[in-house]
Amino acid sequence: MIPESHRDLLDRPLLAMLGTIQPDGTPQVMPMWADLADGLVRVNTAVGRQKHANMVRNPHVSVLVVDPDDEFRFIEVRGDVVLITSDGANEHADKLITEYRGAEHVPTAPLSETRIIVAIEPRRVIVNG
Amino acid sequence: MIPESHRDLLDRPLLAMLGTIQPDGTPQVMPMWADLADGLVRVNTAVGRQKHANMVRNPHVSVLVVDPDDEFRFIEVRGDVVLITSDGANEHADKLITEYRGAEHVPTAPLSETRIIVAIEPRRVIVNG
Repeated sequence: MIPESHRDLLDRPLLAMLGTIQPDGTPQVMPMWADLADGLVRVNTAVGRQKHANMVRNPHVSVLVVDPDDEFRFIEVRGDVVLITSDGANEHADKLITEYRGAEHVPTAPLSETRIIVAIEPRRVIVNG
Repeated sequence: MIPESHRDLLDRPLLAMLGTIQPDGTPQVMPMWADLADGLVRVNTAVGRQKHANMVRNPHVSVLVVDPDDEFRFIEVRGDVVLITSDGANEHADKLITEYRGAEHVPTAPLSETRIIVAIEPRRVIVNG
């Protein structure tokens, strides 16, 4: 469902704006690191954060990535959380840190928090530009 | 309610990520131009667009602006649409175009669409960095 024309926006280390629904039904938008695997958009967060709680309660999300070189070029993936797992989540976090910040930022000490992968299946994709 | 420490993110011509609620209750996130006036966050759109319809139906929105020089520095304004008006909306659109793209991009021909100002009153503000 991700068109080749805009796939680069999800493959490149660009900030993804994740929209979730708060307990009171209002929207929340947070910047996230994201990647694409087997047609799913993946973000990485930690157990207990507000956005984690939101996605457990309400799996409907939206992920927007805008091209930093052309703000009229963007992809919005509206979809549903189909998997939340800690399996491989530390390795996934390390992969994202390496891509977004550089390998020297990968933590060497054990993490104090439980990382999770959140996998989002696209339901509708909007592209522009 | 907008802290001085992060007010620049709304004053500078930075892309604002607007989260709204779709008719089916799922989130939508779109890039917008925005400014700040009298404590309200203002965006400019046109009558009939999906995000306009969303905000008429459900006034709860979220506006996220991330510092392009430091992605860990951001402001999220969760709030409610308190005004949607066409009064002054063409002039407001021209102001935003001038700030975001340059005065040479201001249209000289009459617009084919009805521009509207959407004013958002902050309910809760989250800052980071």
